[in-house]
Amino acid sequence: MDFATIGGLVLGIVLIVSGMLLEGSILIYASLVSALIVVGGTMGGVIIAYSFKQLKNAAAALKIAFSEQQDQPRDIISVLVSFAEKARREGLLALEDEAYQLDDEFLKKGIQLVVDGTDPQLVRNILETELDFLEQRHAINRGVFAKGGELAPAFGMIGTLIGLIGMLSHLDDPDAIGPGMATALITTLYGALLANLVLVPLAQKLKVKSEEEILIREVMIEGILSIQAGENPRIVEEKLKAFLAPKSRTELDEQETEGGAVERNAAT
Amino acid sequence: MDFATIGGLVLGIVLIVSGMLLEGSILIYASLVSALIVVGGTMGGVIIAYSFKQLKNAAAALKIAFSEQQDQPRDIISVLVSFAEKARREGLLALEDEAYQLDDEFLKKGIQLVVDGTDPQLVRNILETELDFLEQRHAINRGVFAKGGELAPAFGMIGTLIGLIGMLSHLDDPDAIGPGMATALITTLYGALLANLVLVPLAQKLKVKSEEEILIREVMIEGILSIQAGENPRIVEEKLKAFLAPKSRTELDEQETEGGAVERNAAT
Amino acid sequence: MDFATIGGLVLGIVLIVSGMLLEGSILIYASLVSALIVVGGTMGGVIIAYSFKQLKNAAAALKIAFSEQQDQPRDIISVLVSFAEKARREGLLALEDEAYQLDDEFLKKGIQLVVDGTDPQLVRNILETELDFLEQRHAINRGVFAKGGELAPAFGMIGTLIGLIGMLSHLDDPDAIGPGMATALITTLYGALLANLVLVPLAQKLKVKSEEEILIREVMIEGILSIQAGENPRIVEEKLKAFLAPKSRTELDEQETEGGAVERNAAT
Amino acid sequence: MDFATIGGLVLGIVLIVSGMLLEGSILIYASLVSALIVVGGTMGGVIIAYSFKQLKNAAAALKIAFSEQQDQPRDIISVLVSFAEKARREGLLALEDEAYQLDDEFLKKGIQLVVDGTDPQLVRNILETELDFLEQRHAINRGVFAKGGELAPAFGMIGTLIGLIGMLSHLDDPDAIGPGMATALITTLYGALLANLVLVPLAQKLKVKSEEEILIREVMIEGILSIQAGENPRIVEEKLKAFLAPKSRTELDEQETEGGAVERNAAT
Amino acid sequence: MDFATIGGLVLGIVLIVSGMLLEGSILIYASLVSALIVVGGTMGGVIIAYSFKQLKNAAAALKIAFSEQQDQPRDIISVLVSFAEKARREGLLALEDEAYQLDDEFLKKGIQLVVDGTDPQLVRNILETELDFLEQRHAINRGVFAKGGELAPAFGMIGTLIGLIGMLSHLDDPDAIGPGMATALITTLYGALLANLVLVPLAQKLKVKSEEEILIREVMIEGILSIQAGENPRIVEEKLKAFLAPKSRTELDEQETEGGAVERNAAT
Repeated sequence: MDFATIGGLVLGIVLIVSGMLLEGSILIYASLVSALIVVGGTMGGVIIAYSFKQLKNAAAALKIAFSEQQDQPRDIISVLVSFAEKARREGLLALEDEAYQLDDEFLKKGIQLVVDGTDPQLVRNILETELDFLEQRHAINRGVFAKGGELAPAFGMIGTLIGLIGMLSHLDDPDAIGPGMATALITTLYGALLANLVLVPLAQKLKVKSEEEILIREVMIEGILSIQAGENPRIVEEKLKAFLAPKSRTELDEQETEGGAVERNAAT
Repeated sequence: MDFATIGGLVLGIVLIVSGMLLEGSILIYASLVSALIVVGGTMGGVIIAYSFKQLKNAAAALKIAFSEQQDQPRDIISVLVSFAEKARREGLLALEDEAYQLDDEFLKKGIQLVVDGTDPQLVRNILETELDFLEQRHAINRGVFAKGGELAPAFGMIGTLIGLIGMLSHLDDPDAIGPGMATALITTLYGALLANLVLVPLAQKLKVKSEEEILIREVMIEGILSIQAGENPRIVEEKLKAFLAPKSRTELDEQETEGGAVERNAAT
Repeated sequence: MDFATIGGLVLGIVLIVSGMLLEGSILIYASLVSALIVVGGTMGGVIIAYSFKQLKNAAAALKIAFSEQQDQPRDIISVLVSFAEKARREGLLALEDEAYQLDDEFLKKGIQLVVDGTDPQLVRNILETELDFLEQRHAINRGVFAKGGELAPAFGMIGTLIGLIGMLSHLDDPDAIGPGMATALITTLYGALLANLVLVPLAQKLKVKSEEEILIREVMIEGILSIQAGENPRIVEEKLKAFLAPKSRTELDEQETEGGAVERNAAT
Repeated sequence: MDFATIGGLVLGIVLIVSGMLLEGSILIYASLVSALIVVGGTMGGVIIAYSFKQLKNAAAALKIAFSEQQDQPRDIISVLVSFAEKARREGLLALEDEAYQLDDEFLKKGIQLVVDGTDPQLVRNILETELDFLEQRHAINRGVFAKGGELAPAFGMIGTLIGLIGMLSHLDDPDAIGPGMATALITTLYGALLANLVLVPLAQKLKVKSEEEILIREVMIEGILSIQAGENPRIVEEKLKAFLAPKSRTELDEQETEGGAVERNAAT
Repeated sequence: MDFATIGGLVLGIVLIVSGMLLEGSILIYASLVSALIVVGGTMGGVIIAYSFKQLKNAAAALKIAFSEQQDQPRDIISVLVSFAEKARREGLLALEDEAYQLDDEFLKKGIQLVVDGTDPQLVRNILETELDFLEQRHAINRGVFAKGGELAPAFGMIGTLIGLIGMLSHLDDPDAIGPGMATALITTLYGALLANLVLVPLAQKLKVKSEEEILIREVMIEGILSIQAGENPRIVEEKLKAFLAPKSRTELDEQETEGGAVERNAAT
């Protein structure tokens, strides 16, 4: 569970609802028509802009925004360094069994290519192409939410215009202006909330998570190629630690002092 | 048929029309003058910004937004792998007949260049230049719609200003303010709808489709060059599969297990 | 004449004027002060932002927006292919006379460099530098209009604020609010029209024309270098056709079948 | 202490508060609900968009915006030139002791890699990777504030809409419109202030400070590699001074004339 | 003097003041509080965003926006071609005296590096690094004005909100609404004027001037390296003229026919 995503949503909703309650009643802010126009119009625009498959993928990507990142760069580094040690002692072929037990498809594929004796340039080529397209797929996933975040306020305004025009065109009773205007403005409120409390932050979260995943993949590519080149495990570690924030490096060092065996187990 | 494009449009229109009906009558939202100012002004701006030829191309590109993508990356990969096998068994010249039967002009041209014994660097050069300019033409096509999506709300506001100024300048009867304002706001509504329900989503759809087509062309270039280099079909497949989402890869594997002959037929 | 530029402007103006006439009279939308504030303020801002020389160039570039593109990529390709044939038959020096008769300064310079026996790397270097700075000058030209398109709505709002503040500060007669507001809003209308019907579309047209001219120059550079390298005219043609849209290629092929001599004449 | 950050904040607050006092009383601008909606809503959106760890880092980065830059490029250049001299006289190993006494982890690591005899290409590779990820972490830190600066005005508008709808929906007493509207607008005011006086300028400050730190790191990388290549200290200085503004260079020259020993001490 | 900068400012101010006078009196648009909030708030935000040193540099850069460009690319080209001739006749060392008499520090440094026999790759490296950081400093200078241009309208709105809230919260006399609103709107007017007539155009002017200076520096780098490579002066001229607009080239040719000695004097 990513408690930040959920906590932020809850915080925002609690504050908005409290603000509404202080104005009297939450009922005056409820309007099914407004919700339909904003949510439906935004969905309509997004459906036009993407294919059903992309929308399905984006919906699936939403799960990522709500779940904790599993792989930590420093765990991956430990695994890669242990692989580098094993490859140096027992040869590249010794990694075959280790690779079979890996959960991560990308790392497994990379190690397998190395074990198969693929040309290093081709290994880099294949893994980087895969990373480029992973990035492109991520960009489409968050693009669905970002486009929705652009359209939602526009449909909020459209709904308010529909309400205003309706009200103004049969203006018999001047006392009805106030409540009519209130109703019209609810759609603008919904559009602003949908965009600023939900869609825009979620698109940003997906971007941030994508950058983290790509960082891990870049660490893997560098590590796999270093292992293939038979580099000294100490140099491999130094190289990969350059990808980390200084603080994470210290944690990695401590971890190693505590028990280097732990990571090796993690990899097996 | 691309049901997403049509479905999204229908969903949006149904919701907007329902919202209007709930305000009383759809007739109060109908205004020919407003439609002329928004549609005509937006068209005027777009016509100034582009040439008639580009507008014709953009109109033709619209068809793409409404039709299903025909080539699937995984079908192309199957074809390319079968070509790689044939070229390895029977030599590059054996691809000449296969090439003649291809529908896709880009792939046909690439294979023909290879069959003609063109220098690999020149093959890559020619195909990548073609891809660059394909991308540029796509950018102009969607640019027509994106520019329209920028101008439409502005002409909506212009129409509303014309209405407001007209109404305010002969303000004899205060009771006429309401209906006059309603009429003036209709143009803003039309501008917002034209932009957010039609032009902006369509420009985005063309962008997404363009990216898909370019991905397929990139797969083709890599495949053609691998075939020319006489690479092992298994490596070719591994390389090209790096362009796919993991899920599509599994589908490709299943397809192959079911009957590798199918793809070969597809290519002949 | 570029009929798109003129036609778009006329279409926009006719629609806006019709809309005004339907509100009663076009006179209520006429205000010299508003025009002075919007046009003058926008000009003031643009003059600050650029030098007089750049403004003069931008004004001269306006002519481009209103005139038809003269060189067509496919004509240039025909010329270059005919040069490649001549150079292969009679040697590079035979191009000297042809070069003197060329109208295009860029192509003439390139051919002359080749005839002079300049190092190919230096030829590419000189021509690409020239192209880079052509692009930079074009960017400044359209930047003048684009900046004007940003400033015009702001000065429209400034004029409206001046009118509103003036009207509100001596509010003796409530009946004067309506007409006063109408007058104030005219400046906003002018700013929106100047930006969205004139400046923004013109800046975009200049961008589109610039891209076309740069495409032609890129075709020329590739062609000149291929001629210098003594490449097979058929390969030269294949390479250059990669710059064209598929449709233009077919036209080029037809043209050649009809009479290849025509292009050769065009080049002499 | 960075007096610019504090001084700017104080100047802005004093002016805004003075403006409020001139309108009568500062109390009419105080609203706990408005503050909660703007600050809470903005925080909610930012929390959704990032992880708790990133928010903690961004909060820590805030300290940087309020504190003076410690390392000056010209001090670093003096240190690097003195290292180059020592390395030339006594060999690269002589830098080991100097490195241990350095405060800066990045410079220390670079010198240590050089002392360890690491391959120059690998040294550059490691240090540039580290710099890339430093830049990425900085971008996330300022992104937290920039995203907040985007969301704050939106939540200001959301709060105002909540207030307006509440007021308009039970509009019994026309005299209550004025004060009700005033209360509603306070939230918009808070959102605009939070964004334009706090979040947007702070994000920009972090960007400016990040660029300065990255400049210093780039100077270090160039210097470390020049030292490893055994370049002439005078050339090293000339090369590194290219990173400085002309004025700083003069200061550096003066400093050196005054007493070159000072910098060497600074490094030890 | 850059008459465009001053002329544009004067034109804008005259028009705005005329517009105000036509509304009755310029006094109704004068408000010290509004000026303080807009100018002070904008300054506060900018001071937070930058350091005092950067603000001082930006203020100094303002002088550039008001003064004529001194070096003309075509003068620099004449100087460089005369240097190339001298170097060819008398050797690179003969440039030492010429270099001492140059005003431009950048060109002087480049020539000196060449005279000192520095490696060409290192000369390019040093000069390009210097150019990169010149560009970065220019970007910060204009960034100060551009950021101010973003903040000014926001503080205009903040001032108007303060005025509106103040007025609405003690709404005893309905007749006071008009003048109160007028006063509140003055701050918005000031913010729009400060941004659109001063800060945004000045930032753009600095950008345009920066591009011109960088162009001249690029010409210098190419020229210096050509001189070092001992290239033919005619080729040097041809290469450098590629940086110019076609018109400037003709002027350069005429100048040379008139008296090539003039430039040589200019260089001494």
